[in-house]
Order: sequence, then structure tokens, then C-alpha cells
Amino acid sequence: MSTPDSKSRITLIGAGTIGLSFAALHLTYLASPTQLTIIDTRPGLDEYVKTTLPKYLAPALHGLVPSIRLSGSLAEAVRDADIIQEQGPENLAFKAGTWREVVAHARPDALLWSSTSGITASSQAEAAGLDDGAAARLLVVHPYNPPHVMPLLEVVVGARTSAETVEKTVSFWRARQREPVVLKKECKGFVANRLAFALLREAVHLVNEGVVDVEDVDRIVETSMGPRWAVAGPFKSYHVGGGAGGLEGFFKNIGGTVQDCWQDAGQVNVGEEWEKKISRQAREGYGNVDVESRDRKTKAVLDAAKTA
Amino acid sequence: MSTPDSKSRITLIGAGTIGLSFAALHLTYLASPTQLTIIDTRPGLDEYVKTTLPKYLAPALHGLVPSIRLSGSLAEAVRDADIIQEQGPENLAFKAGTWREVVAHARPDALLWSSTSGITASSQAEAAGLDDGAAARLLVVHPYNPPHVMPLLEVVVGARTSAETVEKTVSFWRARQREPVVLKKECKGFVANRLAFALLREAVHLVNEGVVDVEDVDRIVETSMGPRWAVAGPFKSYHVGGGAGGLEGFFKNIGGTVQDCWQDAGQVNVGEEWEKKISRQAREGYGNVDVESRDRKTKAVLDAAKTA
Repeated sequence: MSTPDSKSRITLIGAGTIGLSFAALHLTYLASPTQLTIIDTRPGLDEYVKTTLPKYLAPALHGLVPSIRLSGSLAEAVRDADIIQEQGPENLAFKAGTWREVVAHARPDALLWSSTSGITASSQAEAAGLDDGAAARLLVVHPYNPPHVMPLLEVVVGARTSAETVEKTVSFWRARQREPVVLKKECKGFVANRLAFALLREAVHLVNEGVVDVEDVDRIVETSMGPRWAVAGPFKSYHVGGGAGGLEGFFKNIGGTVQDCWQDAGQVNVGEEWEKKISRQAREGYGNVDVESRDRKTKAVLDAAKTA
Repeated sequence: MSTPDSKSRITLIGAGTIGLSFAALHLTYLASPTQLTIIDTRPGLDEYVKTTLPKYLAPALHGLVPSIRLSGSLAEAVRDADIIQEQGPENLAFKAGTWREVVAHARPDALLWSSTSGITASSQAEAAGLDDGAAARLLVVHPYNPPHVMPLLEVVVGARTSAETVEKTVSFWRARQREPVVLKKECKGFVANRLAFALLREAVHLVNEGVVDVEDVDRIVETSMGPRWAVAGPFKSYHVGGGAGGLEGFFKNIGGTVQDCWQDAGQVNVGEEWEKKISRQAREGYGNVDVESRDRKTKAVLDAAKTA
């Protein structure tokens, strides 16, 4: 297997928001923009990439965009690639069909990365009928959107993924100042989304109960656990909070309160009445959020957390 | 009622971590350090405050510390105060006894703030047997620790708290660049902790299942939702994530995944076997965290989120 470094040839399958964000990230690190290929079947791909991709890039890099290779043919797009990264529709049939065709045309040592937020590498390899050689090179590299801003990449290994593939993938991303975290097991929804959704569920419950509204929740999180967790995650924070006793001390001191809150937490479900209330509050309160400003601030926060 | 501004006389009951952190915050904004009184019955209060409080203060303010009034007598400490803020032990009997004595000696227009993380103002006023005039001035001002760093203050109003008290409290804190959020109802554990504990529960479940370890969870949060939520809270983020459809679009697109994760989430409880495993990982992984560095970074992140 070739070493994936700044000389890698990378093919992105799918030019949606995540595809273009990954394109921006790769462009920042590749020796030449001609090493990057984007394959997408949408009409007007060329015009779309030329107008949309610069929004994700520092102005100094806008000049690289016309040199990216664009393709409408999967067979041609993957032929020379060292890394093939898919961010297509979230359904197993699409992923399986894609990998079947990729493997038929790609180099026998290409790394195969899926950006899926929930379809495991094991099930993708199975459904595509990949042989062990191909399945060994397939894993999930799940970004936190948008990947050109957010450092986290959840690396989720399939049953047949090789240790060598994991190692190459992790060192590729580390060299790009990203934070690849290898999960020890495949699980539904992976970890970042599960954690965020658990907090979301409690937030929905509290809005639904009339304790706070949507904007209150956001102000609360933005001025407490958001900035705190940008610096020290929840376990580390509670470990500090427990004083000399650490996390054990924390649960000893306020475990009762924690348990009371858990007991009292409502178990709302998607599809229930609260959705209308909460969606209306978000629409009326926020309208169109300025995403570029949000991403600029997020980058500044990430820098501050690292360097202060 | 006098207007609580930089001329306010403030008495802090209890000089633990939260008390001293509030002391640091007040010192930054008071016209004179002699307006601040700290009452605590611990032996060696003077020496303790002089050595500990400077850790919470910018070096330029260290010289203010010796001018703070220290007291061992509640009656004397509250006599002239415009604002009386308690951060004593978390039990109803202590709070009730304190307010009973405070009200007997304080001015009839003093604001009464409790820093409790869970004992409602209604139950404190009730247990103390406060008359309506005193109960009207009592409410919860729950900080996110440490309050000299974290902007959030959950203002939780009791059944008899007056609108005037709420207004004065909110404008006091806004003038100090804090973020007071008035809850619309008293509820168990208030909001910030409930949200954080909901995420904690899912984190514990995933560690317990062997999907990740304690440090993985923290790295994941620190490089994804932490910095994101420091800039835009969960509802605002998902409102953006839903594109033109807003929060409704988000639930339409991935509500199924959200619900699957909720369904799959384990309902761990405090006191079960996982506590040992998780406490050990925190102890071995983190040892003693450098809290000063954490707080410095948190401040930089808060600045970055506001100004970038």
C-alpha cells in the first residue's frame, strides 16, 4: 500500500456540502490541486464547483479550484486514486453499488472511506459483496459537519478492515491537524451524534414542558457547557469538579442530584406534538443563520482552546 | 428598593470555591472593595481569603483583597447590604435557617440570592417561614462553575418572587457582561445541569458498552459539539443543519436516525457497576488537571466566540 501523504491522489464521490467541505480541506494539504478528483453526476458540475467551493476556502487558495479534476464517470475518476472517499446518499444500496464499481476500476491498494453517519463498514462491505482484500481497505471516516472547520473524524472500523488501513487513515488525518478517534466497536449512530442527540432529547423535553424556550436553551449552552467542553470534555470537567476525589468524588458528592435529573427526564420521541412548537420557535427566533460567521467564530474558538 | 449598581454593598455567605469566584467577579465591578463582605465561619478565614482569592483575580486587582470586609457574624455582615448572596451547604435546613436570620437583620429592601443548584426559591422561602415582603426578594441565581469565568446565571424565580426583584437581578448581571437566563418554571436540577447530565448519561452508556473510553469521549466532544455549541447552541445548529427547512427540515431528514439513537440509548443509573470503570479511566487518564490553564483557555474561547 502506498503511504497517503501530500502526494496522494484523492477522489471524492459526491459534491454535496460534505463533499465540497472535504475538497476544501484536501486542497489545503495536497501538493497540487490536480491530485484531487470530484465525481458527481449533477448537471452543471463544473459551474457549481467553481461558484460554491471558494466559499469554503481562504481567498489565497481560490486559484486552485479550476485545476481540480471533475468527472462524471466513476470508472475513470477512481482509476489512479490512492484514496477514494464517498459522501453519497445515505442508503445501503447506493453505497454497495458504488463500492462494487469502485473496486472493479480502482487500484488494488486504494483506501476506501465512507462518510456515512450510520451505515457501518461491515454492512457496506457485505452488501457490496467485497472480497477480503477490498473489505480490508474499507472503513467509515465520519466527519462532524463541516469537516474543513471541525477537527473530529470518527473512524469506525468494519469486521474485516485491516489494522494497516486504520493506521494509514489515522496518520493521514493527524498530519492534517485533524482529530481522528477510532471507535472500539461499530454502533448505531456512532458516538458524536449519539451524545448530541441525548442532550437534544432533554432540551426538547424542557421546551415541551415550558421551562425554557428554544433560544433560552441555546443561550444556556453557548454560555456554559459549550465553551467549557471546547476546552475540557464532560468527563474531564466532572473529574475536575470532583476535587481530589476525581470523577468518583463527583458522583459521591452530587450523584444523587444527577440520578434525580435522570429519573425526572422526559422520554420524548420523534414524531410527537413537540416538533411543531420547537420548529416554530427556531424559525421565528433565528430565520436564516449566517453560517460563514458561525464557522469563522468556531475556528477562532478552536484556536483559542488550543493556544491560550 | 435601591438600584443594584457598582455602588451596591454585597454580602457573600460562604467562602467556598463558588463564593470566592463570585467575590472575584464582584471585585471587578464594584467601585470599592470595601463594599464587599464575606461571611464564613471557617477558622483562619482571613488567611484563607488572602491566599486563595488572588488565584481568581487578574494581578492588577490583587491589591483589593485586603480591603474586603470579612466577618464571622451573619447579623453584622448583612446589616448594610443591598444584595445578600448565599452559597452555603446544599440542604434545605441550612438555607431556611440562614434566610430566617438574614431577614431579621438585613435591610427590608435587600435582594436575596441563593446559588443553590437544586433547592427552589419557593421551598427555601416556605421552609424559612418568610413573609411575603421577604419572599418577594428571594430567588435562585445558579452559576455555572466557576462564575468569574462562565457567563451563564440561571435565574429561577420562586412562587412569591416579585417581578421587580427579577428585573433588578437581571439588569445587575447584564451590566456585568453576564448572561442571566430566567427559567419560566422551577424544575428539578434546573436546565444547564439537566442538559449536561443527559449527555453524560449517554457517554457513560457508551463507555460501559466498550464503544469508547473516557478520554475518547472527551476528545470527541472537545473537537466537535464543544466548539460548535460555544458559538451556536444545539437548536440553532440543527436549525442551520436543516437547510431551508430549518429545524423542521432537520427532523424530516434525519429524525429517523435521531429516534433510532434515542431508542438504542442505555438507561444507566448512578450506583451501578459502571462507576468504578469510569472513575478509574478518569483518574489514570487525567490525574490532576491544570484548572488555571483550563479557565484561561475557556476565557479565550468565550472571547473568540464573541469577537471573531
